[in-house]
Amino acid sequence: MVALGGNALGKTPEEQLALVKNTAKPIVDLVEKGYEVVIGHGNGPQVGMINLAMEFSANKGGGTPFMPFPECGAMTQGYIGYHLQQAIQQELKARGIERECATVVTQVVVDENDPGFRHPTKPVGSFYTKEEAEKIAAEKGFVFVEDAGRGWRRVVPSPIPKRIVELKVVEQLVAAGDIVITVGGGGIPVVETENGLRGVAAVIDKDRASALLARDLRADRLIILTAVDRVCVNFNRPDQRELAEMTLEDCERCINEKQFAPGSMLPKVESCMAFVRGSEHGTALITSLSRAAEALEGGTGTVIRR
Amino acid sequence: MVALGGNALGKTPEEQLALVKNTAKPIVDLVEKGYEVVIGHGNGPQVGMINLAMEFSANKGGGTPFMPFPECGAMTQGYIGYHLQQAIQQELKARGIERECATVVTQVVVDENDPGFRHPTKPVGSFYTKEEAEKIAAEKGFVFVEDAGRGWRRVVPSPIPKRIVELKVVEQLVAAGDIVITVGGGGIPVVETENGLRGVAAVIDKDRASALLARDLRADRLIILTAVDRVCVNFNRPDQRELAEMTLEDCERCINEKQFAPGSMLPKVESCMAFVRGSEHGTALITSLSRAAEALEGGTGTVIRR
Repeated sequence: MVALGGNALGKTPEEQLALVKNTAKPIVDLVEKGYEVVIGHGNGPQVGMINLAMEFSANKGGGTPFMPFPECGAMTQGYIGYHLQQAIQQELKARGIERECATVVTQVVVDENDPGFRHPTKPVGSFYTKEEAEKIAAEKGFVFVEDAGRGWRRVVPSPIPKRIVELKVVEQLVAAGDIVITVGGGGIPVVETENGLRGVAAVIDKDRASALLARDLRADRLIILTAVDRVCVNFNRPDQRELAEMTLEDCERCINEKQFAPGSMLPKVESCMAFVRGSEHGTALITSLSRAAEALEGGTGTVIRR
Repeated sequence: MVALGGNALGKTPEEQLALVKNTAKPIVDLVEKGYEVVIGHGNGPQVGMINLAMEFSANKGGGTPFMPFPECGAMTQGYIGYHLQQAIQQELKARGIERECATVVTQVVVDENDPGFRHPTKPVGSFYTKEEAEKIAAEKGFVFVEDAGRGWRRVVPSPIPKRIVELKVVEQLVAAGDIVITVGGGGIPVVETENGLRGVAAVIDKDRASALLARDLRADRLIILTAVDRVCVNFNRPDQRELAEMTLEDCERCINEKQFAPGSMLPKVESCMAFVRGSEHGTALITSLSRAAEALEGGTGTVIRR
């Protein structure tokens, strides 16, 4: 199970189309080494862009309807999945590997009582004046916060993922030998109701969703790809040190020492811990996209194990 | 193989969420009768809305990038697939049927030499003044036409679908017992190049794409759902007559008599003919969504056979 960052996909469709080609190579390296690969990916810049454009058009006379946040997330799964699967299909073909690559539109269940819903923190969409924000808050029940002097911005919660709705579908495709793209943007967040699932405005951390899926798929490895080759302690200080391996106890000690930045390395390490704890034999790996195949052979990366 | 109209999905996310519930019931009726169901769907109003919003935001200061047409189509597959699969999952659960329902992001290959590319006819996006249209045409190479006095509008081609890229994935999921949502909006249109597939601005007719997929899946039935229970000759005239059955010869005779409106019943009948011709045993059926299960038992609908 490989988790890719949404920032690594660029900010425009042209950037994304170019960057997915770089992503496809290390992914297909893993396939060539004999791994069954499932890909989760972020969608921060992409869902931001779609949400902004839909909001702008709806508010400023574009004549299109207001688009709820989970629907914007569903759109990013189609948009990013299309580019990713196309690039991976091409890389497979170039290497003469007969495997399918498919994107599965994926919902992820969160708990309506998750504390995140009482304290939303993830900013999304446009900046508003205080008056505009108060008006929308009254109309739609959104929560707004003042964002570093730049204006008022809607915030949504980032609840913990509980269940991958399309888990069996992913399992079926893996069993058939396919490379599967799923839990895009951490999955479309839904809550369980008497009448079935209902989309909620929230952002699920893609590393946490990937860790949950990795556990449920009984994956051997969870690989979280990021901007650095290895996790560091004393990051960006003179005594910075790269870690080749961490036990769960090491992770806990470093977290207590506040070694990992919240919203950055912390959720990645926590996702790895959750996977390792829930897995019988699995290990997790944090490394960079370009050195993923090398890291799987111990050449770089940080392995997290029991 | 069931082809659903995009117009039947409404114009806003709220409408769509309500309408997919009505769609889910007759689909699950088919599942209950023992059919393996694959669903293709249109996306006319939805891709129009997304394309308009992205264009408006990019042109009028929303600060988001220009979004190409195939990417807008990919977004609709995520957006519509999410609602459809959620409604079908709920209907299955309510009836105690343990089956999965999944949306596969689907590309469809068209021929770069398709005559449609020389004579684009499908209007998409905003209305422009003549001057604006000429400027964009010069910059981006788009084709514009004057649209009934309302302004200038971009037109894209509607080429014939040649190959379903994710065919094997759909086959795998059908074999696993799933209800599969695919070829949304007729599929994301791509052409084959030396460097793999490349998205093109075009609209593939969803009935033609569904007919191609039905043939390749060796489906028993292609069901094209529309606003009427049966195909009629002398439509909307005093001597209007419903047809319960048509052979390929009947179809050809009626087409020669110009009985079917281009852009409406004509492509549906032609799609059915293409499927029946390419299939060893399959028959096609044109009927309304609400009476689909009844039509499969001969109670209504128009059957097209050899």
